[in-house]
Amino acid sequence: MKSDKKIVLSESEIPRQWYNIQADMPCKLEPPLHPTTKRPVTPEDLSPIFPLELIKQEASVERWIDIPQEIIDKYRIWRPTPVIRAYELEKALDTPAKIYYKYEGASPAGSHKANTSVPQAYYNKTAGIKRLATETGAGQWGSALSLACSFYDMECTVYMVKISYNQKPYRRSFMQIYGAEVIASPSDRTQAGRDMLALDPDSLGSLGLAISEAVEDASSRPDTNYALGSVLNHVILHQTVIGLETQKQLEKVGEYPDVVVGCCGGGSNFAGLAFPFLKDKFTGTNIRAVAVEPTACPTLTRGVFAYDYGDLGKLTPITKMYTLGHNFMPPGIHAGGLRYHGESPLVSQLYHNGFIEAQAYHQTEVFEAAVLFAKSEGIIPAPESSHAIKGAIVEALKAKEEGRSKTILFCLSGHGHFDMTAYDNYISGKMEVPGDEQPLQANMISLPEI
Amino acid sequence: MKSDKKIVLSESEIPRQWYNIQADMPCKLEPPLHPTTKRPVTPEDLSPIFPLELIKQEASVERWIDIPQEIIDKYRIWRPTPVIRAYELEKALDTPAKIYYKYEGASPAGSHKANTSVPQAYYNKTAGIKRLATETGAGQWGSALSLACSFYDMECTVYMVKISYNQKPYRRSFMQIYGAEVIASPSDRTQAGRDMLALDPDSLGSLGLAISEAVEDASSRPDTNYALGSVLNHVILHQTVIGLETQKQLEKVGEYPDVVVGCCGGGSNFAGLAFPFLKDKFTGTNIRAVAVEPTACPTLTRGVFAYDYGDLGKLTPITKMYTLGHNFMPPGIHAGGLRYHGESPLVSQLYHNGFIEAQAYHQTEVFEAAVLFAKSEGIIPAPESSHAIKGAIVEALKAKEEGRSKTILFCLSGHGHFDMTAYDNYISGKMEVPGDEQPLQANMISLPEI
Repeated sequence: MKSDKKIVLSESEIPRQWYNIQADMPCKLEPPLHPTTKRPVTPEDLSPIFPLELIKQEASVERWIDIPQEIIDKYRIWRPTPVIRAYELEKALDTPAKIYYKYEGASPAGSHKANTSVPQAYYNKTAGIKRLATETGAGQWGSALSLACSFYDMECTVYMVKISYNQKPYRRSFMQIYGAEVIASPSDRTQAGRDMLALDPDSLGSLGLAISEAVEDASSRPDTNYALGSVLNHVILHQTVIGLETQKQLEKVGEYPDVVVGCCGGGSNFAGLAFPFLKDKFTGTNIRAVAVEPTACPTLTRGVFAYDYGDLGKLTPITKMYTLGHNFMPPGIHAGGLRYHGESPLVSQLYHNGFIEAQAYHQTEVFEAAVLFAKSEGIIPAPESSHAIKGAIVEALKAKEEGRSKTILFCLSGHGHFDMTAYDNYISGKMEVPGDEQPLQANMISLPEI
Repeated sequence: MKSDKKIVLSESEIPRQWYNIQADMPCKLEPPLHPTTKRPVTPEDLSPIFPLELIKQEASVERWIDIPQEIIDKYRIWRPTPVIRAYELEKALDTPAKIYYKYEGASPAGSHKANTSVPQAYYNKTAGIKRLATETGAGQWGSALSLACSFYDMECTVYMVKISYNQKPYRRSFMQIYGAEVIASPSDRTQAGRDMLALDPDSLGSLGLAISEAVEDASSRPDTNYALGSVLNHVILHQTVIGLETQKQLEKVGEYPDVVVGCCGGGSNFAGLAFPFLKDKFTGTNIRAVAVEPTACPTLTRGVFAYDYGDLGKLTPITKMYTLGHNFMPPGIHAGGLRYHGESPLVSQLYHNGFIEAQAYHQTEVFEAAVLFAKSEGIIPAPESSHAIKGAIVEALKAKEEGRSKTILFCLSGHGHFDMTAYDNYISGKMEVPGDEQPLQANMISLPEI
């Protein structure tokens, strides 16, 4: 008889601390710079939009950071999440490799984003903040923050990129069920929004502009702070709960991965799974970590490692990261959550130092992998997460070719229940078939002078 | 410290047998009758559309029926499902009652329906059948059968009521991802469909007609059988895996429910949870079982116990059940899965004999319960399942009023990710506010003469 398909933990095994890779990484991060003065950002610079605890976490070099009981109490609504042995996918691929995936789509918000939205809401609540403002593109982050705010009885305002607001009305409803206020961006609620509307009343918005609106909203009201769903150090810190749980789970079945795979946009689910394993790699363990991105937005595989702005409006700190240029406009692929010009500074630094590998795939091959996964394993994956599936399948087929076993672990960061338009497009053969890779726009001239 | 929120089982604790209530119920079922001869249906009558094993299960009076290992192997993709203590809902209601729910929305198809679609596909596959035909209204059943057919590498054709096909394109895509063929009904693929189109080319279809199309399709091809998602004895048999798991889970925490609540359309998730507990009730245990239905389709609360057809076209056997008349047309409420004129004969008989209670609620109060649940427990429930939530809340508030504790158990049969239009309607205040109950149509004259 086969071993169990799902490796589960009890709630008492939810990690009590997050892992902070800044304590162990051999090369330290370069400091984030103020967008106008270009001097290192101080805690005071950040205090108008973030609570003190998160500012401290952002800069901390403590290895382990305690998770407050109040957060554990909410985590256990869906955590621990299962690690699942992909027996059916292995069979479909006829591979000698063992494939495991950590499934984060079991959270009520449908993705790993709730791992950080809950702590962010909690720390803001305890700091006396009554309301959070944020932006959302694809909708996963807005959903997760709406959920967290409903848990802690806070108000939540989500600036949703107008094209998504119009095209994904169900995502909007999803957030509204939790009581969030969802505003199409550009809006007349902020100066940034009004400026854009004056310029182009029909503007469909962009993530960069929505960030500017949310930051402006948060800065202008003392009861309101801002929350970001990826990229930042404290966000990635919270996501390490994914990898820490996974380590316990694999240990239970006597396994250790040869390779860890995650999709990579801002970097938070990839880092959340991989960083606890990189801790082992720093001390000599032989393990590969592979970040998978879309060819349409190839930040790691074709970007440069440089100081750049996080948003179009140049309101955010300048950070050292892999970037395609802050005014890079990626094509409108369906994996909206991976359409970001930059990359988390932590992931960037570790990639730069050779601890992480990166691969890029076209969306048609990614959807092919997604459909094979759905038919064999049952779960319909989010387009973003399907990049990790594709990466895992490539590894599994390599193992088959080489005729040797291998243990592959990937993060299935979310389900695809709100991405049916994308699947429809793929199934009906209307998805753009990739030709040669698009030449990247020559944005690098826009990098700030430091 | 509180006890765990989720009571989980290991895969080795998945039940190895289904429970057949026909062995224990004090009053036996009246036999189903052939729709034209009006004589008791024989196995031969059913063999053109069902495999022998399912026909045997339909009539069996064996108490326990073994679950084949091949079905367990698929069940474990999502089973055992968790029993969850609704701490957050209890707090929101400020009730002394303990509320537990069995969450069946964790299946890849998103509802309990996969518990029977998998065995149905399996038994058909082992009988040499290559293809299954079925109908779907709201889409939950079509999704579950599509999933099961993809697991066993079978073809699947789903006749989807045209109004749903047009209004719920995402449900259609969901089935297509698993490889199913989805056809708007009425279609030109069957005589029943062509007849309707000749009569009314713009017909938006009905569940009754879609059943007729699927049955005709299955009868006319030797490689094809028919599958039904509720009502029948073998369907309810498969669903008892819900209640059997729940009993083990509650036992682990030393609990036994005072009342078991489920939503009731055809009756399968209610029966699946409640029947293993009714076994105890037959031998004197004091437990209440409450079936919750919409006031718009009040089969148990306002129907009659009589022989009636299962479909509009009078192709299905005549069964003794609670019915509103086979030509009853319920209003277009959002809980499409509960819009059925009849009720499972097993549930009907047990209700008739006083072992089951029934309640009916308006959809606005049901959605109010759903939103409260989502905000507190996180999960956005299906409109159908929300009837069970409403029923549980009523019990919890009664306990509060009486100032005494009580253990309430309900089945959360599915998530609401494909029901955002309904939620949108509710949130924006556009959902019809209930006035007095609609007078039922005078359909009873259509009951067949036996």
